[in-house]
Amino acid sequence: MQYSAIKDLIRGQVEIGTPVEIRGWVRSRRDSKGGFSFLSVHDGSAHAAIQAVLPGELPNYQSEALHLTAGCSVIVRGELVASQGKGQSVEVQANALEVCGWVDDPDSYPIAKKRHSFEYLRSVAHLRPRTNTFGAITRVRTVLANAVHRYFYERDFQWVNTPLITASDCEGAGEMFRVSTLDLHNLPRNAAGQVDFNEDFFGREAFLTVSGQLNAEAYCLAMSKVYTFGPTFRAENSNTSRHLAEFWMVEPEVAFADLNDDAALAEDFLRYLLTAVLNECGDDLAFFNEFIDKGLIKRLEGVVARPFARMDYSEAIRILESADRKFEFPVAWGEDLKSEHERFLCEEHVGGPLIVSNYPKDIKAFYMRLNDDERTVAAMDVLAPGIGEIIGGSQREERLEILDQRMAAQGLDGLEWYRDLRRYGTVPHAGFGLGFERLLNYITGMENIRDAIPFPRVPRQADF
Amino acid sequence: MQYSAIKDLIRGQVEIGTPVEIRGWVRSRRDSKGGFSFLSVHDGSAHAAIQAVLPGELPNYQSEALHLTAGCSVIVRGELVASQGKGQSVEVQANALEVCGWVDDPDSYPIAKKRHSFEYLRSVAHLRPRTNTFGAITRVRTVLANAVHRYFYERDFQWVNTPLITASDCEGAGEMFRVSTLDLHNLPRNAAGQVDFNEDFFGREAFLTVSGQLNAEAYCLAMSKVYTFGPTFRAENSNTSRHLAEFWMVEPEVAFADLNDDAALAEDFLRYLLTAVLNECGDDLAFFNEFIDKGLIKRLEGVVARPFARMDYSEAIRILESADRKFEFPVAWGEDLKSEHERFLCEEHVGGPLIVSNYPKDIKAFYMRLNDDERTVAAMDVLAPGIGEIIGGSQREERLEILDQRMAAQGLDGLEWYRDLRRYGTVPHAGFGLGFERLLNYITGMENIRDAIPFPRVPRQADF
Repeated sequence: MQYSAIKDLIRGQVEIGTPVEIRGWVRSRRDSKGGFSFLSVHDGSAHAAIQAVLPGELPNYQSEALHLTAGCSVIVRGELVASQGKGQSVEVQANALEVCGWVDDPDSYPIAKKRHSFEYLRSVAHLRPRTNTFGAITRVRTVLANAVHRYFYERDFQWVNTPLITASDCEGAGEMFRVSTLDLHNLPRNAAGQVDFNEDFFGREAFLTVSGQLNAEAYCLAMSKVYTFGPTFRAENSNTSRHLAEFWMVEPEVAFADLNDDAALAEDFLRYLLTAVLNECGDDLAFFNEFIDKGLIKRLEGVVARPFARMDYSEAIRILESADRKFEFPVAWGEDLKSEHERFLCEEHVGGPLIVSNYPKDIKAFYMRLNDDERTVAAMDVLAPGIGEIIGGSQREERLEILDQRMAAQGLDGLEWYRDLRRYGTVPHAGFGLGFERLLNYITGMENIRDAIPFPRVPRQADF
Repeated sequence: MQYSAIKDLIRGQVEIGTPVEIRGWVRSRRDSKGGFSFLSVHDGSAHAAIQAVLPGELPNYQSEALHLTAGCSVIVRGELVASQGKGQSVEVQANALEVCGWVDDPDSYPIAKKRHSFEYLRSVAHLRPRTNTFGAITRVRTVLANAVHRYFYERDFQWVNTPLITASDCEGAGEMFRVSTLDLHNLPRNAAGQVDFNEDFFGREAFLTVSGQLNAEAYCLAMSKVYTFGPTFRAENSNTSRHLAEFWMVEPEVAFADLNDDAALAEDFLRYLLTAVLNECGDDLAFFNEFIDKGLIKRLEGVVARPFARMDYSEAIRILESADRKFEFPVAWGEDLKSEHERFLCEEHVGGPLIVSNYPKDIKAFYMRLNDDERTVAAMDVLAPGIGEIIGGSQREERLEILDQRMAAQGLDGLEWYRDLRRYGTVPHAGFGLGFERLLNYITGMENIRDAIPFPRVPRQADF
């Protein structure tokens, strides 16, 4: 594979005058009256394409070069030269052109050069990474995902691959997909005429998980610092720009940590991720900043620059109640904060990221630690300007007796193994969850979460 | 969190004489006749536990220290001192002990100190990471997984999160799990009395994927170098030490690459991963080498040290046919190699890792590139001593006409989007798949794949 990534050529890693070979796909062709052509070639390694100058003297200039269209794959050999034209500093003066693959019926090529709506591009999700926007999203996603792993690795967290298939349906975080090998056309029945799940693959009902947290806690209470980073699922029939049926989530969990430690970790983690993207994705972020969301880079730099504000839920309610603002949803102690409230608090009241802590116990999950006031739990949400909640976490209830009360109050039973973690060397511990696609949207300015994952799964949509 | 990871203390990162605090779980307690006790404390950060010396003068020595048992969680403050005892160079001379969590009924603590069988430990998978063996597996798994990402990141591969839920059931790699939100107790029926999947969540039948490859190819033909690293599923009712219903797989895919490039990548990748573990997991590997598999480190070093041998399938068959060996399964051109054949070839014939290429087309998947002999395809398997196949890959069929013939021959249709990749700027490309748990078993010497993943899913087993 003796060829150059376009990234290395345009970033000056290869000297002018060097013989080079590039391999990629045609973005566009422009023919000069002087009898030569300009070919714009991309290979996914960089935001920019590189320009190749195809002289009329190429043996296949008439027969092939002049028939190239967007999407054709080519190999171009030549010399790297300083570019005379605008918009690029180097180009390839070609002395050989090889066409690898033509485009079948160029007029109907689904992503021919003109701009397409993001909605349309979702219908050709197998081709959209060839566009500027989705190429950029792919690169930013990779940088962000690697920053996630690097952050935890450098801090001695263990990456725990918690199971996707689960037989416990009591996590309470949302509707679940059933996983089964039963023949729906011929369901096994027991003596009572009920579907006999004993005949199913796992010998019982099984589902796709909504969170790796409970399993991560088991590893946390052995390894001290762990995280999950994997797919999670929601079977909610929500056809919105913010919901996916399948998405990736990051969930760290730390032993001997309380809610303050948790908030500090969330803040540090978020700052690290944004800094990594700001440092490593300059060209792609500049593109998003120019074409998708004008204030993007400034907003990200703002989040990185200042310490996150902190406030109790009860204080947040007081601020919202006394705000000179009409909200769509009511503000009252005991109600969850809606997006409009969250955004008011961080965008207008604080003017920056904000961590809200200690929510009413009745609106939060059973595993969150009961505070001494017995009305609130040690939960926290990180709110960011322009999006609202970006991280949600809590200190976990480590006291068996109180955990049992909370489970009973929510009508949950079972989970003996989870109770064991409190019976055998329990310790205070805390963690949080970060929706990866949601963060990616925040970083790129993209509005629809279906554009933050390669092949989105949503109600009535599992193409590709 | 002003406390020290045990790892940092035992590796000499903290000076002797420094006041330190450790937080972790008791592995064992030993009382001296001199009126003080030794406590062995682990926190998951290192293979070794650290010894804390608890003097009888501690205010809670009688009331608490003397009641500590394996599994209790403690915070110990004191001074880091050079150890007088055997087996450790430093220990903590305690001046304060705080018990965070007791063990409920120590006699029945499921992983009390004596050794347990791995089979038993699977039944307490939520507690087994507290054992030496599973703590070590967890750390090696993390190092290995991070090495996977680092390898590709440093080489400008894009990490593509291919979908887990898929509506295409024609990948042909194995039986699949159905994913559904239909109420099995009240299935919707169409006019013909058939189950009406139009009413299901995705508006059609959906399954858990067996491979991300086809989706990765779409991104490969835009970004040039991509990989997946995520969960995949098999609904095969195989209750063996080598099968999991849910496991993690690494699948790189490279554009403008042929089978030789693919084999070179596989060899380089495997060498990188083993080198990373050899360099970073010294203590844990030494443990596996001593207690699990005596020849382990030598075998891994052997794989790293020498170039992998290469041979065609046809040559492999000739060697097997003329071998002075009785095989259980027949050897004949056209039959797949069984584990006994693979191991003979690499362990006895070659004496090291071996890459076998160009298998008969009829035993391989439709997407593998047909060779000019029209009898074989450009497939390759990497075989390693002690395990057999560890990587399987191929150059992909990039020619639409031949792909169509191959699909027709195997009775497949649909996959229009996959055909599009050959209609629009097709290029030669190649990739492979590596089963992550299989590699982890190879590296640790563990025999059962259920011990290589935190919470294994197998037939009739989805606990935790």
